[in-house]
Amino acid sequence: MLATPDLSRKLAAEFLGTAALVCTVIGSGIMADALSSDDAVSLLGNTMATAAMLFVLISLLGPISGAHFNPAVSLVFTLLRQLSPGLALVYTAAQVSGGLVGTLAAHAMFDLPLFEISSKARQGSSQSFSELVASFGLIVTILGGLRMRPQAVPAFVALYITAAYWFTASTSFANPAVAIARAFTDTFAGIRPSDVPAFILAELVGAGLAMLLAGWLFAPKDAA
Amino acid sequence: MLATPDLSRKLAAEFLGTAALVCTVIGSGIMADALSSDDAVSLLGNTMATAAMLFVLISLLGPISGAHFNPAVSLVFTLLRQLSPGLALVYTAAQVSGGLVGTLAAHAMFDLPLFEISSKARQGSSQSFSELVASFGLIVTILGGLRMRPQAVPAFVALYITAAYWFTASTSFANPAVAIARAFTDTFAGIRPSDVPAFILAELVGAGLAMLLAGWLFAPKDAA
Amino acid sequence: MLATPDLSRKLAAEFLGTAALVCTVIGSGIMADALSSDDAVSLLGNTMATAAMLFVLISLLGPISGAHFNPAVSLVFTLLRQLSPGLALVYTAAQVSGGLVGTLAAHAMFDLPLFEISSKARQGSSQSFSELVASFGLIVTILGGLRMRPQAVPAFVALYITAAYWFTASTSFANPAVAIARAFTDTFAGIRPSDVPAFILAELVGAGLAMLLAGWLFAPKDAA
Amino acid sequence: MLATPDLSRKLAAEFLGTAALVCTVIGSGIMADALSSDDAVSLLGNTMATAAMLFVLISLLGPISGAHFNPAVSLVFTLLRQLSPGLALVYTAAQVSGGLVGTLAAHAMFDLPLFEISSKARQGSSQSFSELVASFGLIVTILGGLRMRPQAVPAFVALYITAAYWFTASTSFANPAVAIARAFTDTFAGIRPSDVPAFILAELVGAGLAMLLAGWLFAPKDAA
Repeated sequence: MLATPDLSRKLAAEFLGTAALVCTVIGSGIMADALSSDDAVSLLGNTMATAAMLFVLISLLGPISGAHFNPAVSLVFTLLRQLSPGLALVYTAAQVSGGLVGTLAAHAMFDLPLFEISSKARQGSSQSFSELVASFGLIVTILGGLRMRPQAVPAFVALYITAAYWFTASTSFANPAVAIARAFTDTFAGIRPSDVPAFILAELVGAGLAMLLAGWLFAPKDAA
Repeated sequence: MLATPDLSRKLAAEFLGTAALVCTVIGSGIMADALSSDDAVSLLGNTMATAAMLFVLISLLGPISGAHFNPAVSLVFTLLRQLSPGLALVYTAAQVSGGLVGTLAAHAMFDLPLFEISSKARQGSSQSFSELVASFGLIVTILGGLRMRPQAVPAFVALYITAAYWFTASTSFANPAVAIARAFTDTFAGIRPSDVPAFILAELVGAGLAMLLAGWLFAPKDAA
Repeated sequence: MLATPDLSRKLAAEFLGTAALVCTVIGSGIMADALSSDDAVSLLGNTMATAAMLFVLISLLGPISGAHFNPAVSLVFTLLRQLSPGLALVYTAAQVSGGLVGTLAAHAMFDLPLFEISSKARQGSSQSFSELVASFGLIVTILGGLRMRPQAVPAFVALYITAAYWFTASTSFANPAVAIARAFTDTFAGIRPSDVPAFILAELVGAGLAMLLAGWLFAPKDAA
Repeated sequence: MLATPDLSRKLAAEFLGTAALVCTVIGSGIMADALSSDDAVSLLGNTMATAAMLFVLISLLGPISGAHFNPAVSLVFTLLRQLSPGLALVYTAAQVSGGLVGTLAAHAMFDLPLFEISSKARQGSSQSFSELVASFGLIVTILGGLRMRPQAVPAFVALYITAAYWFTASTSFANPAVAIARAFTDTFAGIRPSDVPAFILAELVGAGLAMLLAGWLFAPKDAA
């Protein structure tokens, strides 16, 4: 039996989980891009690595902190009154700082400057719509999964992201902390800092819409 | 415990599930095709995304509507007297309209005209035979899976489709609603409208044959 | 509850399972080869399709016939006195004829002559050693899996074959019925008929050695 | 019920498991490299084969020996007082000799000289840091997995390695026995013997740090 996790362990789980996730996203992007001349092959490597790591991280850290690794997820659970606003705030701080450390770790492994500024443009209404859809789908997956088969949520999230890397034009960031961290790498997974705010806005709107839908679609028996 | 789903939730599940499925099939095809010069690499991305999404959608929406997303599946359950003809009809309407919205959503994300007409020829007896085989295998998988390990049906369908994308010459549509939706995209996953009727006919024949085989092969104890 | 399967259902399961397996191996090879100029990409598609189909077939048909689809497997269970010699013989006939029908179905879907003779050379001691290792590993996987986690045998076999397609020089046929069926296709997955006997011999030797090792390594408690 | 494994079975499991793992890593590297001109495609094949084999080996041999296949893992369990120093020593001998036999088997299958000396340079602080991170993550995965969902440890390790092949600059050896074995192949997976000591040192440091973190983060209830 695991000890009831105290605050420091919860924050460590959010920090480490987001760091590992970002390190995987950025590191596998660098590796894939260096090895391949075909961007779809690079995205295959990027997808496989990200999904595999998500499954492991959510499985191991979920029982400690809930394994959000994502301010949009923490916000949703706050609105659903399953997380206090204060905890959501420190979770977000842990996620954002964890993400930045993940970028740093990936750069250190690949002999790059520790922090860079991305020059990769990801803008326009189709990118915003992609992030809205990506984030909408992620939150529906999490809330529906928790209702239907909580034990399988790590698999649901990993597989949803596998699909979303490919069916959205933005390759599905769906996570404000990850979007910020990816602004500080000028590699395959980067995003220009000036494009981050629109991504975050779209992600939050998508999450809010998903919350509304899921509240109705997956309503528990006594709420029907 | 989930509330007993009312009709509106069932139809929403069929509509949303088919939309998400089609959006994944078409969106990942566009993404893969844009990134790669190797069509097998594109098909790998297309396969991985489709299978991952199918697993998530069937797991989450199965308890609500049965997660058919496919008029051929609804027809089979009607013939097996597990779905009323009236419900099958509205399911089919939800699936076809959901599929069209999926096409629209994918186009919106990738900055394409919302609806196009496909010019991709998929015709001839070998294509029809492929669809018959693809659909036959899908229905055997579903009916056999429901008998053997109902909990694993999402995995069975996702993995069957993974294989069928590759071993059939048509890349296995196996779904009339998806075939119709794919007629309205002039991208990797498209199909010329004039080729759709032969696809649908072959899919229905394959489904019917599968029902006969499965009824014998997977007969329950008291029917032996 | 499934009815106790009678002989005709057992043979149908072995026939259909082997046909579907061979059809997947050959069909996905044809598809991948046609789409790609990179043979490793083709092998990725071939691997993914084969593994996915194996998982589905063993899960659904295992409760009916044991899901051997492979004369070497039937031979091992006969030597272990879990299958009568007579049943092993008719199983083998069902497997070999099923395999040939699988070749035929793949060719029909891809508009090829229904039967061809392969011209693909797969000979020499390193190929034989590869088949011996491939088959040794397959039988250890099956016998060990049945002892350790019988429910997971479909996953074990699918994932073992995923690995073996890549770590053996022969891409791991590991199955006499499949080797015979693949002699009748002049495509990616083919094998020259004159090379088949050495493959089958190596597969049987590997299976026999695996039986000896597994009998000791995975001995049940009362046999220790 | 499995017999309580005696020492000879435990050592056989460590020997065979490490041999099969190394044979898969090296063999799939040779195959992928021979078939592809794109190194990321080769790494995809290498990753898929390694992960699939790890899942099977840990599932089948875990109940016998614990399925370490890795001196760093055995060292950690010794420090945690779950393995005696004497057993750790013979485990290590079995792992190292098993690894060498795995190299030999892969070479025999691909018609190469049985032992070669690698000329592939893998040096520098970023490589060492990569191995430290890779090994840190592996041990956190194992110790966290054993606390959270012991039954899923084979999947956790396989998927962690899937990610680590891509997000580390060294493609994640994370295993001293495997590093030694890979020094004796001059193929895709090789490593120059002179670079091995720095790899092993980094792996042991990463393992030690992981043990400290996991001891706190995954502390059981009564230790909280």
